[in-house]
Amino acid sequence: MKPMLASSVLGLAAVVLASTAVAADLKPEEQIQLRQAGYSFMGWNMGKIKANLQGEYNADQVSAAANTIAAIANSGMGALYGPGTDKDVGDVKTRVKPEMFENMEDVGKLAHDFVAAADNLAEVAQGGDPAEVKAAFGDLGAACKACHKKYRAD
Amino acid sequence: MKPMLASSVLGLAAVVLASTAVAADLKPEEQIQLRQAGYSFMGWNMGKIKANLQGEYNADQVSAAANTIAAIANSGMGALYGPGTDKDVGDVKTRVKPEMFENMEDVGKLAHDFVAAADNLAEVAQGGDPAEVKAAFGDLGAACKACHKKYRAD
Repeated sequence: MKPMLASSVLGLAAVVLASTAVAADLKPEEQIQLRQAGYSFMGWNMGKIKANLQGEYNADQVSAAANTIAAIANSGMGALYGPGTDKDVGDVKTRVKPEMFENMEDVGKLAHDFVAAADNLAEVAQGGDPAEVKAAFGDLGAACKACHKKYRAD
Repeated sequence: MKPMLASSVLGLAAVVLASTAVAADLKPEEQIQLRQAGYSFMGWNMGKIKANLQGEYNADQVSAAANTIAAIANSGMGALYGPGTDKDVGDVKTRVKPEMFENMEDVGKLAHDFVAAADNLAEVAQGGDPAEVKAAFGDLGAACKACHKKYRAD
C-alpha cells in the first residue's frame, strides 16, 4: 500500500477551508451516508482481522482486510465533513459532535495518526506474522478510539 | 495493489457452499448493509475519478480513489451474500435479484472480471496518464454494469 499521509491530511484540512469540487457535488446527507459507509466497511474488515487473530489465521484474508482499511483511510474522507454535516439532516443521523468542526488542527493530528496506523497494519499484514499484526492492530484500534472518544457521541 | 484475484473469487464461491466463520457472525441484514456500504464507497470513488477525468486531473486523488476501489473489490465481499440475503430483511432493502444466487458460476466470472478491471485501474492510475486512466475506468464501469444488468433490479 503506497502511503499517502500527506494528501489524506491535506484533504481533511481542505474541508475546513472550503469543500473540494467533489464534495460540493454531494449534499450534506450524502456526505454523512458515505462517511458512515466508509467507517462500517472498515469496521467489517477490523472484525475479520480480529476473528483471524482469535481463531485460525488466514494471512491472505488479513492482508486483504488491512489493505482495504488502509485504502479507505487514505481515500480523503475529510471531504465528507463539509458544511452542514455537523448535525442530523432529516432522517440521516450522525454521531459526530459539532465541536469536531471547531478543532480541526487536533482532528488533523488524529487523522494523521489513524492513517499512519492503518498504513503500518497493511504493511505488517503482508509479512504474515500474527504477533506483529496483533500489535499493529492494537495500535490502529487505539487510533480509532482516540478520535471516537473526543468527537463521536455515544 | 497486490492482485488477489484468486482469493476474491474463491471467497465469492465459498459463499455458495457455506458462509465463512466471519459471515456466520453477521445477520443477513448486516451483510446487506455492509455490501451496500462497500458499493456506495466504491461509487463515491468512481465519481471522484470521473470528475478528475472531466476537469482538473489530480493524479494523487485518482490513485487514492483507484486504490480504494481495488482494495474493496479484493476484500472478499462474496462473504456478504450469505443465506437469507437474497431478499429484503425487514426495513433493510436489497436490489439483488434472487436469481443471482442460482447462477454462482456466472457470478464468479463477473466478479473475476470486476476485480481484474479494478486492479488494472489501480495500477494504471499510479502511472498518472489521464488517457490510460480513462480507458481503464471505462473497462471498470463496463464490468460493474455487466453484473448490474443481470443481477440488480432497477
